[in-house]
Amino acid sequence: MPNFHFSVLHKYCCDLLTASGVAPDCAQAVADVLIDADLSGISSHGVSRLSIYMQRLNAGLVSRENNIKVIKEGPSSVVIDAGNTLGAPSAKFAMEMCIKKAKETGCCFATVRGSNHFGATAYYTKMAAEQDMIGFACTNLTGKIAPFGSSQPFMGTNPISVAAPSNDKPVVLDMTPSVVALGKLILAQKLGQSIPEGWALDPDGNPTTDPAQGRKGSLIPIGGPKGSGMAIVVDILSGILSGSGYGPHLHDLYEMDAPQGVGHFMGAIDISHFIDVDSFKSSLSTMISEIKGLKKVKGVQEILMPGELELNRKQQNTEKGIDLPDQVYQELLDLGNPYGLSL
Amino acid sequence: MPNFHFSVLHKYCCDLLTASGVAPDCAQAVADVLIDADLSGISSHGVSRLSIYMQRLNAGLVSRENNIKVIKEGPSSVVIDAGNTLGAPSAKFAMEMCIKKAKETGCCFATVRGSNHFGATAYYTKMAAEQDMIGFACTNLTGKIAPFGSSQPFMGTNPISVAAPSNDKPVVLDMTPSVVALGKLILAQKLGQSIPEGWALDPDGNPTTDPAQGRKGSLIPIGGPKGSGMAIVVDILSGILSGSGYGPHLHDLYEMDAPQGVGHFMGAIDISHFIDVDSFKSSLSTMISEIKGLKKVKGVQEILMPGELELNRKQQNTEKGIDLPDQVYQELLDLGNPYGLSL
Repeated sequence: MPNFHFSVLHKYCCDLLTASGVAPDCAQAVADVLIDADLSGISSHGVSRLSIYMQRLNAGLVSRENNIKVIKEGPSSVVIDAGNTLGAPSAKFAMEMCIKKAKETGCCFATVRGSNHFGATAYYTKMAAEQDMIGFACTNLTGKIAPFGSSQPFMGTNPISVAAPSNDKPVVLDMTPSVVALGKLILAQKLGQSIPEGWALDPDGNPTTDPAQGRKGSLIPIGGPKGSGMAIVVDILSGILSGSGYGPHLHDLYEMDAPQGVGHFMGAIDISHFIDVDSFKSSLSTMISEIKGLKKVKGVQEILMPGELELNRKQQNTEKGIDLPDQVYQELLDLGNPYGLSL
Repeated sequence: MPNFHFSVLHKYCCDLLTASGVAPDCAQAVADVLIDADLSGISSHGVSRLSIYMQRLNAGLVSRENNIKVIKEGPSSVVIDAGNTLGAPSAKFAMEMCIKKAKETGCCFATVRGSNHFGATAYYTKMAAEQDMIGFACTNLTGKIAPFGSSQPFMGTNPISVAAPSNDKPVVLDMTPSVVALGKLILAQKLGQSIPEGWALDPDGNPTTDPAQGRKGSLIPIGGPKGSGMAIVVDILSGILSGSGYGPHLHDLYEMDAPQGVGHFMGAIDISHFIDVDSFKSSLSTMISEIKGLKKVKGVQEILMPGELELNRKQQNTEKGIDLPDQVYQELLDLGNPYGLSL
C-alpha cells in the first residue's frame, strides 16, 4: 500500500482540482477537508471521494467557480447561498463567518443552501474548537432513514457534530442518527456477508439481515423515535431554515441526475462570553481524566472520548504518512493523467 | 380517578407553593411547567413532582426566594446564576432573555448555573417555537449512564429538546440519550417484572434483565458511543460552560443530601433572520404531511411527528381536564393540609 506525506497528497488534490478548472480557493478548501479525514483515519471521507467529485464537476453537476454569496446577515446570523459551489469551501466559509461574528456577540449560526457534499462534519466544528469556541454543524443528505412508524426512507443519514476545546485534545462528537452508515451495507453486500439484525429494515419495514434488502429498504435510526427525530431536526435546520430542499427532494452524490441541493447549518459559541476560557478548558480536561479513569468493561483497554481515536490517528499519520489503498492510488493516478499530473 | 380542569390544578400549585413561602413569581413558573406536562400526558413530569419539590424546600435544599442573577450578558449571550432558585423559574427566565435577544441579533444562548430540576425540557423550546423561533434546551442530571467502554455511571440521562414552528402544531423533539428513563426500571422492580435486554447493564457492565441490578449498574445509551457522546456534550454545555458541576458531582433530586447544583443550556434562533417565517412554516407543514403520508409499518395506525402525541393530548386535556391518579391526588391533599388548602 503506497504511503504519502499529507502535504504531498494535499498538493496533488489542489493541483488536480485547479487543473480541471476549479477556482484555486475552492480546490484548497476541498483538499483541506479531505486530507484531514485521511489523516484522521476516516478514509471513507478522504481523497477516495475525489473521483466522484471530479465526475460531478465534469458532468456540470457542480460548479467549478466560487459562487458563494452572503444573502443576508445580522449580528449573529448569516444566510449563505452556495450557488452549487463545492461543499467544503461553502461550509468552511460559513464557519469562518460564524467564528468572526461569535467573537463579537457570543454566538452566531449560519445556513448554507444550494450546496454539495462537504466531507466529514467534524472538520467544521474543530475549526471552532481551535478558536476556543464550541462548534456545531450538521448537513442533510438524500433519504435513507424511514421516519419512526414508516417503512419508507425519507431523511438522510444527516450527520451532527459538536466540538469543544480542552487543555489537550478537543472533544469532537460526529455522528449519524442511524445505527450504521450505508457504507457498511454496501461493503457487506460486496463481501457476500449478512448484516446483524438492528441495522436495516426491508422495503416492508421488517428487520432484515440481507444487506441487499436493507439497501432497498431503510436504515434503522438509533433509539427508534429518538434517532428518527434527530434526523428530522437536521432536515429542518439544514433544509428548511436554509431554504434548501430536504429528505427525498435532495439528490444523491452517486446519482448523476442533478445538483445535490443539500443545505448545511452550523455555528459557533464563543466560550469567553460565558466563562473564563482557561477555566472551561481545565474543567473539561478534568472531566476527561475522570471519565478515562472509570472502571472499564471487560475487554476494553482504554475508554475513549468522542473523537479521540480520530485525533490520535491524525497525530500519528501526520508523522508517519497516509496509507493509500492500491485502488484509491490508481484512481488518483487515473484522475491526474489527462492533466499530466502524477503522484 | 379524580379529574380537574387545568386551571384548578394550576391555582392549587401556586397557592401551595406561595403558602409555603415560595416567591409568587417562582410559584407561578413552577405551576406553568408542571401543568403543561400533565396536560401533555407526561404525568411523570407533572404535579406528581410537587411532593419532592416541597420536601426539598422544607429541608432548605432549594431556595424559596427568586435569587436569579444575570452575571454577564452580550448581544447574543446570557450567563445566569440561579442561586439555587427552583429550576422552572430559572430556566423560563433564561429562555425569555434568549428570545428577546435573538429578535435583535438572530440567535442567543444562555447558561444557567446553580439550578434545580426544571421539569420537562420541551416546555422551554416550545416557548421559542411560539415566538416563531427554533428553540434548543438541555440540562444535566446526576450520573446514571456509563460512558461507552465503561461500566461505571457518570453522565445523567441529560435530556435534549429542539422545537420548531409549523402552520399547525410545532415539531418538538424531547429525548434522553439513554434507551429508557430510569423510571421504567423503578416501575419494573416495583411490579416484580424483568426488563428487556438492551435497557441496562449490571455493575460489572454486563447486560441484565434484572431491574434491581440495572439500577445498581447503569442505563444503556442509544447507539452506544453516539448516545454516550450526546450525554457528554450536554454535560459540557450545561455543566462546564455554565460553571455548574457535571455528572457524578451533581446531586440527585431524590437524595436529600445537598442542593442539586445542576446547570442548563438553552437558546433561541430567530427564523426571520434566516428566511421568511411564513415560508419556513409552510415548508415545515409540507414536510409534515409528506412524512405522515408515507407507507406505514404493519400495525402502525398513524405516523407521528416528534412531540405530536403530547401536543394532541394537551389539546384534549385542556378541554376534558387532567386525570389525577388517586395516589397523586392524596399527595396533593396532604401537602395542602398544613396550610388549610384543599383541592
